Amino acid sequence: MFCLAIKHFFKLTISPTRFLVTDTFQTASIKNNILYGKPVAERILNRCQNECKEYIEKYNHRPKLVAILVGGNESSKLYVRNKQRIAEHVGVDFHVINHLMHVTPSNLIDTIQDLNNDDSVDGIILQLPLPLHLIDKTEQFIDAIRSDKDVDGHTTLNNYSYRQSSSPFVTIPVVDAVKEMLLEIGEPLQGKDVVVIGRSKYVGTPLALMLSQSNITAKSDLISGATVTICHRHTPSTNLTWYCKNADIIISAVGRPKLVTYRMVKEGAIVIDVGISKSWTDKAVVSNKRFVGDVDFDEVKRIARWVTPVPGGVGAVTVACLISNLLKLARQRKQ
Amino acid sequence: MFCLAIKHFFKLTISPTRFLVTDTFQTASIKNNILYGKPVAERILNRCQNECKEYIEKYNHRPKLVAILVGGNESSKLYVRNKQRIAEHVGVDFHVINHLMHVTPSNLIDTIQDLNNDDSVDGIILQLPLPLHLIDKTEQFIDAIRSDKDVDGHTTLNNYSYRQSSSPFVTIPVVDAVKEMLLEIGEPLQGKDVVVIGRSKYVGTPLALMLSQSNITAKSDLISGATVTICHRHTPSTNLTWYCKNADIIISAVGRPKLVTYRMVKEGAIVIDVGISKSWTDKAVVSNKRFVGDVDFDEVKRIARWVTPVPGGVGAVTVACLISNLLKLARQRKQ
Repeated sequence: MFCLAIKHFFKLTISPTRFLVTDTFQTASIKNNILYGKPVAERILNRCQNECKEYIEKYNHRPKLVAILVGGNESSKLYVRNKQRIAEHVGVDFHVINHLMHVTPSNLIDTIQDLNNDDSVDGIILQLPLPLHLIDKTEQFIDAIRSDKDVDGHTTLNNYSYRQSSSPFVTIPVVDAVKEMLLEIGEPLQGKDVVVIGRSKYVGTPLALMLSQSNITAKSDLISGATVTICHRHTPSTNLTWYCKNADIIISAVGRPKLVTYRMVKEGAIVIDVGISKSWTDKAVVSNKRFVGDVDFDEVKRIARWVTPVPGGVGAVTVACLISNLLKLARQRKQ
Repeated sequence: MFCLAIKHFFKLTISPTRFLVTDTFQTASIKNNILYGKPVAERILNRCQNECKEYIEKYNHRPKLVAILVGGNESSKLYVRNKQRIAEHVGVDFHVINHLMHVTPSNLIDTIQDLNNDDSVDGIILQLPLPLHLIDKTEQFIDAIRSDKDVDGHTTLNNYSYRQSSSPFVTIPVVDAVKEMLLEIGEPLQGKDVVVIGRSKYVGTPLALMLSQSNITAKSDLISGATVTICHRHTPSTNLTWYCKNADIIISAVGRPKLVTYRMVKEGAIVIDVGISKSWTDKAVVSNKRFVGDVDFDEVKRIARWVTPVPGGVGAVTVACLISNLLKLARQRKQ
């Protein structure tokens, strides 16, 4: 029943690996050069669904994920609703704790501690960003979450783990999502030129580190060993264009619409759009497509070999990776 | 007396900031474009000496640093002797524990635990590399060191700290040394193109992160905000040349002689050599200059604005930063 529900949940989309049989065929599929996240997410969620079923049968308890939502930020509410819908499709018990905008730091810490101590809770999400009066203490709140319930991989201990030589247990979902997209493309990164735009602690920086590190396993050839350039707001725009125009792969994680334009992309490059921001153009409002990525999608898809759309690209896979983390952590705590 | 000893210890060298009064003067000083580490180290060690004196007066106890040396690696012995000589000049109580090559992992852990529990010990150095039969467990041994005695900043907790938004308490000495060299040059990095060659956990990667992060303080303008490219053994040599030739600053931390050649350096660039390896050429043996860096120094100094020598460059400052870490940690433990 779950399987059917998930298939119904995702529209039928074509996985890009089907186009990777021969180079000739790749060239022929240049019109179909959109790398959809939904088939990738579907595969992960199907696996999660089976794992969830096994977990429930074995432990007579549904894996429980709790999201803490502070204030009334519309985007945050939307993200949490999205996570809830997907988690419940998989079979996860999902709860939301709503805190008013003016919650005190100590009250927020108390909520986190209660969830840490509640043995029935397997994963905790602190939905970011926090309201302005709490934003400076974000790291402190995150580090209050037990690392074995940290499905977002944001705590110091988990956030550090992607840099270890052994495979990390919990990877930041968005980093995992980019990894899954690259595995889907199936082209070794070793020796390739990659530009990561954005240097944030939870997205740009861990992505750059993952992609540049040395190869540990045969599979990791596809997601590491690249020459990585970290660009950001202080990179002059001419330099950004110069680096991008040379890159085999561009990954943008900034949140600025149309930052990556046609003229910045080398023919045949792979462009992965991790950015998300609200668009207020008339077209966006009329078509109700409010969320846009960093990439000028309609133009860039004319030149790139693969480009991910927003929505329907990395975002969909990110939520699937979050659920995957929950199941990993839930099983780990039972062992 | 200590002051005199340190002045005697270092040869008289000219600090590069003296040449930074005007651009005209900089151009005029193109023959003097060697960025010596010794004056920088001398300044740090003079401060350390005063701090050490104050510490001894206040606590009636000399800060104690213990190095664990496993096996008979000649380079390791030389490094430890060098650290000992400088530490003792400053007034630090320095001890070496020699373990035989075939020490068991549990014996090594026991040694570290004894030093952790010995209240008179303020800092522990585990001299790397370990012998082959222990090398795979290096991280495990390092993480056995109490983070408040970890003068090398190698433990997971300290190694992570350079990524925090607040200033880290203990920075990896070589990272700190490069920072000091850049502060000495005094040119803001923001928006500049930097190439870091090498992606090692304790050198290349933390350097790349430090230089690319957002600016926290006015002073950090000089050591962060750059567009950083991480190159490494999988970067094809033509690409390496391409990135380097564009770079305002090249930092090489590989350990391969003459990796950075004249034709890879842009006129007026800054070249910081963190690499160190043994040279077996006849010239090196005859002149007893066995240790060389990654940079083809004699050639590169003709084109670079500043280039650091090996020996006498970053290495000298690294040891000074190690001693500075010891004093920080010793004071912290007394508070």
